[in-house]
Amino acid sequence: MLEMDKAALEQFLIDQFPQVVGDYAVGAVTPDALTLRLVVAERHLRPGGTVSGPAMFGLADVAAYLAILARIGPVALAVTTNCSIDFMRKPAAGKDLLCVARVLKLGRTLAVVDTLIYSEGGKDPVTRSSLTYSIPPKG
Amino acid sequence: MLEMDKAALEQFLIDQFPQVVGDYAVGAVTPDALTLRLVVAERHLRPGGTVSGPAMFGLADVAAYLAILARIGPVALAVTTNCSIDFMRKPAAGKDLLCVARVLKLGRTLAVVDTLIYSEGGKDPVTRSSLTYSIPPKG
Amino acid sequence: MLEMDKAALEQFLIDQFPQVVGDYAVGAVTPDALTLRLVVAERHLRPGGTVSGPAMFGLADVAAYLAILARIGPVALAVTTNCSIDFMRKPAAGKDLLCVARVLKLGRTLAVVDTLIYSEGGKDPVTRSSLTYSIPPKG
Amino acid sequence: MLEMDKAALEQFLIDQFPQVVGDYAVGAVTPDALTLRLVVAERHLRPGGTVSGPAMFGLADVAAYLAILARIGPVALAVTTNCSIDFMRKPAAGKDLLCVARVLKLGRTLAVVDTLIYSEGGKDPVTRSSLTYSIPPKG
Repeated sequence: MLEMDKAALEQFLIDQFPQVVGDYAVGAVTPDALTLRLVVAERHLRPGGTVSGPAMFGLADVAAYLAILARIGPVALAVTTNCSIDFMRKPAAGKDLLCVARVLKLGRTLAVVDTLIYSEGGKDPVTRSSLTYSIPPKG
Repeated sequence: MLEMDKAALEQFLIDQFPQVVGDYAVGAVTPDALTLRLVVAERHLRPGGTVSGPAMFGLADVAAYLAILARIGPVALAVTTNCSIDFMRKPAAGKDLLCVARVLKLGRTLAVVDTLIYSEGGKDPVTRSSLTYSIPPKG
Repeated sequence: MLEMDKAALEQFLIDQFPQVVGDYAVGAVTPDALTLRLVVAERHLRPGGTVSGPAMFGLADVAAYLAILARIGPVALAVTTNCSIDFMRKPAAGKDLLCVARVLKLGRTLAVVDTLIYSEGGKDPVTRSSLTYSIPPKG
Repeated sequence: MLEMDKAALEQFLIDQFPQVVGDYAVGAVTPDALTLRLVVAERHLRPGGTVSGPAMFGLADVAAYLAILARIGPVALAVTTNCSIDFMRKPAAGKDLLCVARVLKLGRTLAVVDTLIYSEGGKDPVTRSSLTYSIPPKG
């Protein structure tokens, strides 16, 4: 059921998103869910030491994207068309963030993915988001 | 951990929302999730026999609201401030809809609830939505 | 620039949505924006006399749908895939609601429409919403 | 009607967000709308040369935040609680982005802001987003 495993997804990130290599580490990948880690560094922080909104948005977007690719393979070029994100709690200081992405729908032209971000070791989610991707028709 | 159980929530619906009595039936209620059934009738349908968007929106809203009340009791008057909903599949014809609502955040002034709606007996969600409620300060 | 004018859209509503005839009246239609009125009746109200959330959601959805059809004509069967709605103020009691819908994007497969709902005569919006529609390929 | 003008907002950015100085330039500020420019640089780009999603999310978030501060002054510490964003078109290569933010609601505890992002010189919006901020009670 998986077209790409953890190693293939990590290689894909290196090849396609060289700017963000080092930011992300792929965790568990199953047909149901993918976990992606944001290796938090100075450049992700806002004053006060919490991870910035754009860094959390980026984490959710990359996790959701990889969750789709894990299912359909690297051939398709999916584009984010919508994201709704709730910022619910402050991330814990000094902790990496873990994003769990679940594919809720994988249609011919649209995919919908739900994500939750946690501070590592925390049990209450920091953010919740849902993202829609437009999948181009096969050539 | 529950301030209101299934019977208390059903009585609350009867008292506060007499217009929609008969539309909804409260299912399982736990601290983690509440299930609400839409007893589908002619007035919920669009041409072609599928449940209308507003009827599904209403189901998600009532389910999320009851999930919050189950946790904080009937005293607070929560107001929906935001809803983001994805319509992912057509509901099955001739089936009731079941909405599972999970409270992701229950703060002093804001609550965030995630919902999935299924056609009864179906395993793929028909809609996904997240709703935010503003909780008035205690008097 | 308009494929359907006000009269054509009203006829379309009568033909395709006989259940809601009487609920809605089409107002001004231009290439930029369409105005739709909800003729508020008892069945749209919650206790306390304000228009219900589902009735406002339905108004926004129909307005956005008609704004798309005004531009592409009645041939296409657009389906709502996402709606994000903010409930910002209570509707005024005893007033109709007016929804102004603007098409922000009209692509080959996706359309995005922004809406604002006002109580008639009011100048601050009651709700804001944005809706995405999937447009099926031409046969 | 404005508690902070363009110069005050720019000074606020320098003081509070030193990490992003140079990214943003405040444009026109009126009670109705605020314009913020993203001075596009290499670090905002994805492969292919278009501005990344997180960079556009960040632009919308900062523009909306400044639009609120322009109205209520620098005393309040507003926090983003929700964002819904539609990515509608590719940004033009080699152009700055301009974000126009309008405050739709400014309540005691919640503010809602609508934004549109354009490529400089373009007339069709690249993204649309709406953001909710929680405003802490006055001390």
